Amino acid sequence: MNHEPVETRVRVRYAETDQMSVVYYANYFVYFEVGRVEWCRARGFDYGRMEREEGAVLVVAEARCRYRAPARYDDLLAIRTSLKHVRNSVIVFSYEILNAETGSLLAEGETTHVLTDAQIRPRPIPESYRALFE
Amino acid sequence: MNHEPVETRVRVRYAETDQMSVVYYANYFVYFEVGRVEWCRARGFDYGRMEREEGAVLVVAEARCRYRAPARYDDLLAIRTSLKHVRNSVIVFSYEILNAETGSLLAEGETTHVLTDAQIRPRPIPESYRALFE
Amino acid sequence: MNHEPVETRVRVRYAETDQMSVVYYANYFVYFEVGRVEWCRARGFDYGRMEREEGAVLVVAEARCRYRAPARYDDLLAIRTSLKHVRNSVIVFSYEILNAETGSLLAEGETTHVLTDAQIRPRPIPESYRALFE
Amino acid sequence: MNHEPVETRVRVRYAETDQMSVVYYANYFVYFEVGRVEWCRARGFDYGRMEREEGAVLVVAEARCRYRAPARYDDLLAIRTSLKHVRNSVIVFSYEILNAETGSLLAEGETTHVLTDAQIRPRPIPESYRALFE
Repeated sequence: MNHEPVETRVRVRYAETDQMSVVYYANYFVYFEVGRVEWCRARGFDYGRMEREEGAVLVVAEARCRYRAPARYDDLLAIRTSLKHVRNSVIVFSYEILNAETGSLLAEGETTHVLTDAQIRPRPIPESYRALFE
Repeated sequence: MNHEPVETRVRVRYAETDQMSVVYYANYFVYFEVGRVEWCRARGFDYGRMEREEGAVLVVAEARCRYRAPARYDDLLAIRTSLKHVRNSVIVFSYEILNAETGSLLAEGETTHVLTDAQIRPRPIPESYRALFE
Repeated sequence: MNHEPVETRVRVRYAETDQMSVVYYANYFVYFEVGRVEWCRARGFDYGRMEREEGAVLVVAEARCRYRAPARYDDLLAIRTSLKHVRNSVIVFSYEILNAETGSLLAEGETTHVLTDAQIRPRPIPESYRALFE
Repeated sequence: MNHEPVETRVRVRYAETDQMSVVYYANYFVYFEVGRVEWCRARGFDYGRMEREEGAVLVVAEARCRYRAPARYDDLLAIRTSLKHVRNSVIVFSYEILNAETGSLLAEGETTHVLTDAQIRPRPIPESYRALFE
């Protein structure tokens, strides 16, 4: 299992701030999703295609974020995504969000996913995708 | 055609503000959608069901908003939605957003929709829904 | 400390769904915020006013959600918010989100907040607000 | 006045789709904002700094989008932003959103802004920023 994090960058949008002039707390989970998608792309795993071709979806079972310091409008963020754990249908990703210019840690979190079919019943990882996660 | 507006209310969420301490401009289109759904419900038109049973979807072709005065966090808003125009597959709704407590007009707009099938090809309004729009 | 949950309701917006036809996972944190605001209102605590008058802000330090079953477009949700824990500058809220019609539990979570001044330095709960939390 | 469009790219996030499996209509206005910010950056105009140093804010007065074809999850989009018109306190931007891989036009629109002070009263463009818009 490749534990090396995959890094991707996003710039904070005005839409993502709130009246406290910081990124609204729920949006870090959107950044986690961006990181997760780029982790998949970097590993050659096309999530959209798995969803279309295998009818397999990654359902979120749990999500968690610890906020260390606020991200602000127009900040360039580095999202570091790692595959933390895989067992049967369960996949856990972990994330760090840093200010890409200063390197300071802004947030960290995990998301736990269960691989399911389109009816949201747990199913094993499709054969052709297994190597990517193991 | 019933031109009477349908009014519904929403309270501005913290998530919907931006660092200018006003509602972020794109979110008025979310309020328009809330108004549109409640217009449909008030007229006995279940949009979700039409989507499921008829495979008919209302695709947005154009959307427009004029901003008169800012809405702020925790403001109670009144969304007044009217059916403005129907022709063949084209349906136009208009909206006014007011501060529900002061009555002042905050925004007004229109959305133009084309009724399509699931493959996003225009189709006439399903027979059983026609009376609602005419 | 009043442990009684405060219940509020929201209807799932189209904007909040994703292409899996369920509520996008980050939006549960927006619902938590709606619940938190209504908890405050029900307890006579005007968060916007405390922010304006005392320069005191509730910064989120941690947020977590466990997803039990998907919420879908147009579902009416009941958000039950409880004050779980208060110590010095730290306030923990817990939440349950249920389908208001079936009563089934869809999600549950917690958010941990630190009360700070406008420069995001921890500060005690303002005197005039203390009774609400104790 | 430099009429050359500035192009920037975004990849469609899962968060931005809706249950019709296309980008939710309000999110195009978020893309417009991303384009507007990058137009400013490309012209050497730091919007965040003008807001901080001059207390000058660009308030949206009108926004409009025509939807040509749906954008989908993980599509790479090109946003082409042009300064269309400037007069006194009024600035109009226009936008085209294309699929960056196929080149097909997905949406186009305009936003009209009024430059105001922090109390949302119209004010002329600050001297030191005037050259950028003229």
